[in-house]
Amino acid sequence: VNVDWIAVDWGTSQLRAWAFDADGRIGATAASADGMGKLGPEEFEPALLKQIGDWLPQGRRVPVLACGMVGARQGWIEAPYRPVPCAPIVAGGFVAAPVRDPRIAVHIVPGLSQAAPADVMRGEETQIAGFLAGRPEFDGVLCLPGTHAKWVRISAGEVVSFQTFMTGELFALLAEKSVLRHSVATEGWQEVAFEMAVDDALSRPDRLAARLFALRAEALLDGLAPEAARARLSGALIGAELAAARPYWLGQAVAVIGDAGITGAYAAALSRQGVAPEVVAGDETVLAGLAAARELLGELT
Amino acid sequence: VNVDWIAVDWGTSQLRAWAFDADGRIGATAASADGMGKLGPEEFEPALLKQIGDWLPQGRRVPVLACGMVGARQGWIEAPYRPVPCAPIVAGGFVAAPVRDPRIAVHIVPGLSQAAPADVMRGEETQIAGFLAGRPEFDGVLCLPGTHAKWVRISAGEVVSFQTFMTGELFALLAEKSVLRHSVATEGWQEVAFEMAVDDALSRPDRLAARLFALRAEALLDGLAPEAARARLSGALIGAELAAARPYWLGQAVAVIGDAGITGAYAAALSRQGVAPEVVAGDETVLAGLAAARELLGELT
Repeated sequence: VNVDWIAVDWGTSQLRAWAFDADGRIGATAASADGMGKLGPEEFEPALLKQIGDWLPQGRRVPVLACGMVGARQGWIEAPYRPVPCAPIVAGGFVAAPVRDPRIAVHIVPGLSQAAPADVMRGEETQIAGFLAGRPEFDGVLCLPGTHAKWVRISAGEVVSFQTFMTGELFALLAEKSVLRHSVATEGWQEVAFEMAVDDALSRPDRLAARLFALRAEALLDGLAPEAARARLSGALIGAELAAARPYWLGQAVAVIGDAGITGAYAAALSRQGVAPEVVAGDETVLAGLAAARELLGELT
Repeated sequence: VNVDWIAVDWGTSQLRAWAFDADGRIGATAASADGMGKLGPEEFEPALLKQIGDWLPQGRRVPVLACGMVGARQGWIEAPYRPVPCAPIVAGGFVAAPVRDPRIAVHIVPGLSQAAPADVMRGEETQIAGFLAGRPEFDGVLCLPGTHAKWVRISAGEVVSFQTFMTGELFALLAEKSVLRHSVATEGWQEVAFEMAVDDALSRPDRLAARLFALRAEALLDGLAPEAARARLSGALIGAELAAARPYWLGQAVAVIGDAGITGAYAAALSRQGVAPEVVAGDETVLAGLAAARELLGELT
């Protein structure tokens, strides 16, 4: 492998790495379940070397750009949040992780914070930078669905404000750990049920708390199909998120960034509100953001 | 023990039994963790006899009145829901469980169902009957907080309609299983934080989804106390429930039935909306309801 630098997306539950050559081509990839959540401070370097050790030449330090929870207080080394408004990543803003191996220099991208309302992100700032690398003139709102969905106002290349919703985590807890697990399928979908649930949530957002147990009751009394219950639960939660995030998307240019399935659901929900969002693959924005970080880092010897 | 009949409250996670004598006095009590959730159909009778076997005389069948999830489809025997509007319990409405022991006759109180909006209850109908036994003229609304909180309209001794909220289960999932577990105490309380969260939830009920992650962010950025976070999470969820249940309690006589801690929180929240609820101990209503069921059952030999 001809390695110029290495990109690492290191979240709570997994680690992914890509080796880039000097022409910006990917020469190797690796992934493991060694997420930040299961590692002590001394275990990060070995966990990383296990994935990328074979890629490293002797005689020089290869820059490694890492984003995500690896920079949390419980991570490899804390990369303190940068307060918004600010550019998503900036030159001189990275935190060097302590390493013993002379073949690597690890730079962690810090997350962003907002004072009021209090909010934080780690990892999404890199996706935002990746999106803006290809769309430097973008003025509008980014939506990054997921475990903790983010809505982000962008203007003049800066993150102006943002807000986090626990929609993905709520869905997983309700579908897998609550009484609804008996009535909600683990796979499958009914688009019409999803759309009706989104519309209902947006027209009566105050009634979210009343909608959840109905899925169990309808399953017991009316034989509600588990796939329909799954789509309705998702629609109720995404609809509640859209209702609370209305000040973000109303009348704005919106781009949704993430995996195909979930971005499709958000795009469908938004389009029913008259918003036609751009949809962008999340993997691409992570790599573009880490590449932008590599550029900002400058040359290392 | 001089046993006239036996009351059993048999839920998903526990079993409690009381021996009553002919004068209505409790002569013995028992409790175990043999909830419906862990028992197969053949295991209910042994689990019950393990608790009450010593109380039973020879030569006659002692009536056992049982309420709760023991009557679910996955329970001892299914006691089909009775559709509202109806009295909470009625003579001739009990389902006999199959028993081998000649010393007991087990009668299960069926739950109630509502067709639209679809809803179900099991166990609360007995508490409602217990409340109404002492207050036959009550016309208003009952609130039974808990894992699955119920709001119940009562008129002319009947359950007119009801609605279930997963507030207690949501609180437990968020406080113990979500990212908020790092920021929310398992004990402790700040009343002012609770009251402010209730007021906020009721004034902007559409923003529930936006309030949850703020607890984590404020803990990280501002050192939010875990006890305050616990009270705020509870206030946000109870406030959201009150917002969605407003058609139930607005302008009505309200009684809150349950354990001291949770009924106090609901009473405090309601009083901020100008409702002065009566607070009733949940244990007493269960026993009063099972005693009312015993009366309706009539004499057994």
